[in-house]
Amino acid sequence: MSADKRVCLAYSGGLDTSTILKWLILEGYTVVAFLADVGQNEDFTEVEKKALALGAERMIIENLQQEFVDELIFPAIQCNAIYEDRYLLGTSLARPVIARAQVQTAHKYNCKLLSHGCTGKGNDQVRFELAWKACDPSLSVIAPWRLPAFFNRFQGRQDLLKFAAENNIPVSSTPKAPWSQDDNLAHCSYESGILEKPDLPAPKTVWTRTVDPLDAPDVPTKFSVTFKAGIPVKLQVDGGETVTGSLELFKALNDIAGRNGVGRIDIVESRFIGLKSRGAYDSPALTVLRLAHVDIEGITLDSKVKQIMHWIGNEWSQCLYNGMYFSPERELLENSILFSQKHVHGTVDMMVYKGAAHVLARSAPESNLYSEEQASMDTLEGFSPEDTSGFIAIQAIRLEKYGAAKIKHGEPLARGS
Amino acid sequence: MSADKRVCLAYSGGLDTSTILKWLILEGYTVVAFLADVGQNEDFTEVEKKALALGAERMIIENLQQEFVDELIFPAIQCNAIYEDRYLLGTSLARPVIARAQVQTAHKYNCKLLSHGCTGKGNDQVRFELAWKACDPSLSVIAPWRLPAFFNRFQGRQDLLKFAAENNIPVSSTPKAPWSQDDNLAHCSYESGILEKPDLPAPKTVWTRTVDPLDAPDVPTKFSVTFKAGIPVKLQVDGGETVTGSLELFKALNDIAGRNGVGRIDIVESRFIGLKSRGAYDSPALTVLRLAHVDIEGITLDSKVKQIMHWIGNEWSQCLYNGMYFSPERELLENSILFSQKHVHGTVDMMVYKGAAHVLARSAPESNLYSEEQASMDTLEGFSPEDTSGFIAIQAIRLEKYGAAKIKHGEPLARGS
Amino acid sequence: MSADKRVCLAYSGGLDTSTILKWLILEGYTVVAFLADVGQNEDFTEVEKKALALGAERMIIENLQQEFVDELIFPAIQCNAIYEDRYLLGTSLARPVIARAQVQTAHKYNCKLLSHGCTGKGNDQVRFELAWKACDPSLSVIAPWRLPAFFNRFQGRQDLLKFAAENNIPVSSTPKAPWSQDDNLAHCSYESGILEKPDLPAPKTVWTRTVDPLDAPDVPTKFSVTFKAGIPVKLQVDGGETVTGSLELFKALNDIAGRNGVGRIDIVESRFIGLKSRGAYDSPALTVLRLAHVDIEGITLDSKVKQIMHWIGNEWSQCLYNGMYFSPERELLENSILFSQKHVHGTVDMMVYKGAAHVLARSAPESNLYSEEQASMDTLEGFSPEDTSGFIAIQAIRLEKYGAAKIKHGEPLARGS
Amino acid sequence: MSADKRVCLAYSGGLDTSTILKWLILEGYTVVAFLADVGQNEDFTEVEKKALALGAERMIIENLQQEFVDELIFPAIQCNAIYEDRYLLGTSLARPVIARAQVQTAHKYNCKLLSHGCTGKGNDQVRFELAWKACDPSLSVIAPWRLPAFFNRFQGRQDLLKFAAENNIPVSSTPKAPWSQDDNLAHCSYESGILEKPDLPAPKTVWTRTVDPLDAPDVPTKFSVTFKAGIPVKLQVDGGETVTGSLELFKALNDIAGRNGVGRIDIVESRFIGLKSRGAYDSPALTVLRLAHVDIEGITLDSKVKQIMHWIGNEWSQCLYNGMYFSPERELLENSILFSQKHVHGTVDMMVYKGAAHVLARSAPESNLYSEEQASMDTLEGFSPEDTSGFIAIQAIRLEKYGAAKIKHGEPLARGS
Repeated sequence: MSADKRVCLAYSGGLDTSTILKWLILEGYTVVAFLADVGQNEDFTEVEKKALALGAERMIIENLQQEFVDELIFPAIQCNAIYEDRYLLGTSLARPVIARAQVQTAHKYNCKLLSHGCTGKGNDQVRFELAWKACDPSLSVIAPWRLPAFFNRFQGRQDLLKFAAENNIPVSSTPKAPWSQDDNLAHCSYESGILEKPDLPAPKTVWTRTVDPLDAPDVPTKFSVTFKAGIPVKLQVDGGETVTGSLELFKALNDIAGRNGVGRIDIVESRFIGLKSRGAYDSPALTVLRLAHVDIEGITLDSKVKQIMHWIGNEWSQCLYNGMYFSPERELLENSILFSQKHVHGTVDMMVYKGAAHVLARSAPESNLYSEEQASMDTLEGFSPEDTSGFIAIQAIRLEKYGAAKIKHGEPLARGS
Repeated sequence: MSADKRVCLAYSGGLDTSTILKWLILEGYTVVAFLADVGQNEDFTEVEKKALALGAERMIIENLQQEFVDELIFPAIQCNAIYEDRYLLGTSLARPVIARAQVQTAHKYNCKLLSHGCTGKGNDQVRFELAWKACDPSLSVIAPWRLPAFFNRFQGRQDLLKFAAENNIPVSSTPKAPWSQDDNLAHCSYESGILEKPDLPAPKTVWTRTVDPLDAPDVPTKFSVTFKAGIPVKLQVDGGETVTGSLELFKALNDIAGRNGVGRIDIVESRFIGLKSRGAYDSPALTVLRLAHVDIEGITLDSKVKQIMHWIGNEWSQCLYNGMYFSPERELLENSILFSQKHVHGTVDMMVYKGAAHVLARSAPESNLYSEEQASMDTLEGFSPEDTSGFIAIQAIRLEKYGAAKIKHGEPLARGS
Repeated sequence: MSADKRVCLAYSGGLDTSTILKWLILEGYTVVAFLADVGQNEDFTEVEKKALALGAERMIIENLQQEFVDELIFPAIQCNAIYEDRYLLGTSLARPVIARAQVQTAHKYNCKLLSHGCTGKGNDQVRFELAWKACDPSLSVIAPWRLPAFFNRFQGRQDLLKFAAENNIPVSSTPKAPWSQDDNLAHCSYESGILEKPDLPAPKTVWTRTVDPLDAPDVPTKFSVTFKAGIPVKLQVDGGETVTGSLELFKALNDIAGRNGVGRIDIVESRFIGLKSRGAYDSPALTVLRLAHVDIEGITLDSKVKQIMHWIGNEWSQCLYNGMYFSPERELLENSILFSQKHVHGTVDMMVYKGAAHVLARSAPESNLYSEEQASMDTLEGFSPEDTSGFIAIQAIRLEKYGAAKIKHGEPLARGS
Repeated sequence: MSADKRVCLAYSGGLDTSTILKWLILEGYTVVAFLADVGQNEDFTEVEKKALALGAERMIIENLQQEFVDELIFPAIQCNAIYEDRYLLGTSLARPVIARAQVQTAHKYNCKLLSHGCTGKGNDQVRFELAWKACDPSLSVIAPWRLPAFFNRFQGRQDLLKFAAENNIPVSSTPKAPWSQDDNLAHCSYESGILEKPDLPAPKTVWTRTVDPLDAPDVPTKFSVTFKAGIPVKLQVDGGETVTGSLELFKALNDIAGRNGVGRIDIVESRFIGLKSRGAYDSPALTVLRLAHVDIEGITLDSKVKQIMHWIGNEWSQCLYNGMYFSPERELLENSILFSQKHVHGTVDMMVYKGAAHVLARSAPESNLYSEEQASMDTLEGFSPEDTSGFIAIQAIRLEKYGAAKIKHGEPLARGS
């Protein structure tokens, strides 16, 4: 069949993408189903079986966990990525590796079309499609949830179930949770359904990757994380294991932090397309590693460099959130991030306990920025206190002018003055 | 005595400022001792007695708690103030109100000189003196720890103790803790001494305002905070009290969060004068209120406004940390902060438990930014999914060019491509 | 007729909007033609006659020049607005006042529809429609150049001319210039047609508001501009007139600068929708006033405030370029702009001559920031040179650490070191 | 003599540094005089003769022109460096190469001391000393104009002349201009003296590198500048020479622009140490090349990259102005600058004429960002106008909420609404 009728579909095995798979076939397309293994909890054999049963030409499953950690998660840690002061970007981080692999799959199996099951109101459609367009603008997109022929036909879950029944699409016997969920190494996200009421707490049953802090162990877990060039390279658990591979280290921390109830985030955020939405996120390892990295930068980064990188990290975070990983700005920003981390080496001692992560201490023997002797309030070795007088006098010049002008204009220096 | 020999000294009652008080008198100055009550744990009567016993002309003690909360702490919360991603600025926030009151005291008691006991390596000398210079540049400063005549004579604690013995300066019978501490409503800070080894955890006995998370109650405390124009105006404790005055509310939250072990921060930070130092901080109420405010902004602030305010808040934080509260830039930034908060009204439901603060839910009935119907993935009411296709297509234009150029130059789109 | 069939059309009298007017009528709409007088060179009576002849129900012409200058042009000067380091935003500045007035016209004449003749690739469609949506989201938009029924029918100028002939649309006897042009008080823009070759100079005949610098007078024109709170309030021409009204002053400067060949800009810029385009702009008064304002800020704004406002002005410029004048961020930014200008009072002496504007001198008697005595290299009055030693020593602390680390790592301090 | 008594003095041959040279010798120091040739107009043989006559051990003159252009001036052009919207940083750019060479000279001739003749109120002392401290913190600084023993003795020019007469220091027979001047390849600066009255125009005789625009040739000079990776690599004068070497190209442009009166800047600026000062600068080639570079970026840089680089260039400019070239932040920023320029290739056609530089056209055949077909308003090839409707609709979502809230709160959408 001509490449123009061959679609590479992001297929998860769920009701939505199963419906789309079938619908595409009924519309005359040949479907190559694609699923990335980015660490989600999934029975991949079942998904494959289902895809083939529904008529997919083949089911391609790619394990992208290693590149997900190395290319996306660790750069996020290097720049202390965070969106709107809260969200650690878990979903945004996975999209680029998935999108790129799907384009490669399309190339390999001669598809000129790409498809996904994302809704028309969310961020993920944007992230997938912008990545696809950057990777290969010659491929076209079928986004069923934005096609009137599709979304008018399937106006609710009942329509999907009816179509499933008519088309022998197997439907999970467990009733669907009243929210949707997206799982990967970096986090698990929960949104829509009953979570769309931001004034109601998320149900206790929502969280899959962290235990309830109230049910967490009564004994804290202590460990240390060692960074080399801003990258976590060693995890040493107190009285326990030592982990060094990037993927293994990240998984081990997901486990440790998750067991101790660390990493829950519940927010209302601004989607790229202009809507506000409520999301709940479980990000155990990301939470711990971001905190550890911020801490190790405290002792290894020059203050002005830290200020510049705060801005750069903020830009990187927005860029990723908005689906613009494959962009000239991301490449530019990441070039700065890597450069800034050249001397970010050291070890952070931490503790996780009943929902909180704590930094206890840190050391960075290769850095000369912290000097106990120089910082010490108890000695003047190598420091001339008189210098500070001059420093203050010069800094005061413009503030004195400000104060004088205030007096002249009869204005208070501050609200209560 | 001529105003030129009259000094208004920031006097705490401790060994350092007692020595300075006596030394100033011996040098021929008349001393007006000044102490601001910014919520620290202090026996003010004892301090007064000591000052007068040492020869101070008078001891002025001013209660500045209310203006401290209203003019400094709450603006910090309104702009989510934070320094180097960690420090909540407790000490920096207190300095402006203290410095201003000390200048007013100098005016009242005809002093042309101001003095303090800050060391020559720290931030506080800068903060006090820049504030003084802005408030009244005609006043001169005596900073003994930067005067060779003083710092060469008092080279260590032993020299101070010897001088105290010779001059009948009463010395506390409890041995001094091997670190220094600064206490106010916003936080208690701990630094120097044994804390100057950042690779060793702070001793358990350091913390005075938060209990050890391991010793915190087994039952969480739940409460809600209501904001009006970004200001906390009501605290409602689950099954408990309702607090509304700003000072009372802040104190109540200090208590609640402190009892639950919330608010400990241990960092290496960049002092304004270019040194790195290690600090430990107890900021219970600030920690909770900053989180609550970030959350309520999520549902009440436009996304672009939030981005701009992130930058403004960062500038404000640096400005405060560096002691430039009385500056044209602080006034400019604060003008933006107030403007941005005009519609930040709502209530955040929270829980504190064994060292962690959690946001559970929030509501903002006066804001139209969040719309359940619009955000819902289950309905298309008022939303045309096709619009998103156009949005993505236009956003993709420059990314497609980027991808095409990459292909042309034979460069990978990303590290692993 | 029902409001749903009543359209308020932005009508210029040209071939495009005349075609649209007629086409709308043929499609069954009633058309209220609207034209804003924002200072363009236009025979308004002719336009009205033409609109009525073509069947418009009425032609509304509103003189918006005063509010254009006061609400848009002067704020742009106050924040030194510039886009991509070159473009002074002339078109972007006019759009908000036009869009708002058109919405008011729609309200007045009971139209539920708005229409314009902008192409689908440009910035102006975005600017008009975003402004309309903010001003009244209940109004709908007819954008013919984005409707397949329209753009497929009118694929080139020949199709428009044919339709004109068939429908008695009078066509100007002077052949259309091979580029398009948009004229208002702030500037005249030229783009498309032969200007789409950015490697060819704009023809000499393009420019309508500035004389060729080679043909400008051999004698320079000198004048001074006085600012009050960052607003130009007086123009004093050497040996000539004094102008004080905002509109009159701006027009007088357009004339003076234009006669001297000042204000030509020729660039390739980034449109909001992701395309690059070449534009040529004639902005005589804007060029002169922006330069004068930057200069007066030099002597009246604190350096740190200037840095903050540089960033704010840049954000304002992007906001305006992208058509987001009626937005929460514009309101926030403008609040800062106004605040920053409170003390920007003074007079700048300038000269325009054969294409260049020069600042010659300036005075700001109400500001204390510049002090001849303090700045003077010839006196030390009120300045302790030793202070600078301390200032430098403290600033050097982190740079010394940097240098030491470089030596330790065997890295050069700079490329050629 | 011990290295501790050996001083490497920045020696210019003028009255100030001649006095310092002699004074140092009288104070018991051995002086190695150092002068960098950074393109200033100077009789180097005379300077050497004078230094030796005054007792310098030796006079070291180093030609740094090539590294000045390559390491400082061209990076400034690559990032469109500008300070406070006006100043092109000419002096700041020269200081790092001079300071570094002076440290190398000190090393070579066994000096542990460095000295200069900068005043205590200016920027240059800061720039020299910060660079020295970063390059070798073990060297000490003698800054006579900040030493009371020196500045109290030499309180005015008369004291210097008297000392010169007493110590056989030859004094130029031409009376000193009533301002000071600093000359290098990048520019010539003029300040102090009669220029300290910013409300008086600079005298016509001030300018040395540009002719008065009124006296410039009646015929414009046209030329083109070709960039490779943001670096000017070829100058092609219309009907004239082709220049390719970086130093030669820069000098040729200094000549061409200077002859045509291009490059004069007259400002009040904010010195790093908090004072405002008035400076006049002649920067012919810098002016032209900055404009050319901004233009070529218009056609070769992605819009978002351009925004990021605007911020980076601004930081770089402040960093350089403040004398922090040898700093971690400069290295970080410059890493971004170089990365951003990878594809900035192309040619800009320009004209200089009687004080103004004009961009006429540009081409960038290797870039795909500008596409005539895509930009064209006359064709819809490869563009779906309907996409823009969706783009606008999505962008409008948050603006509609803003408008609706305004209506609800009864607030105007803008001042005049």
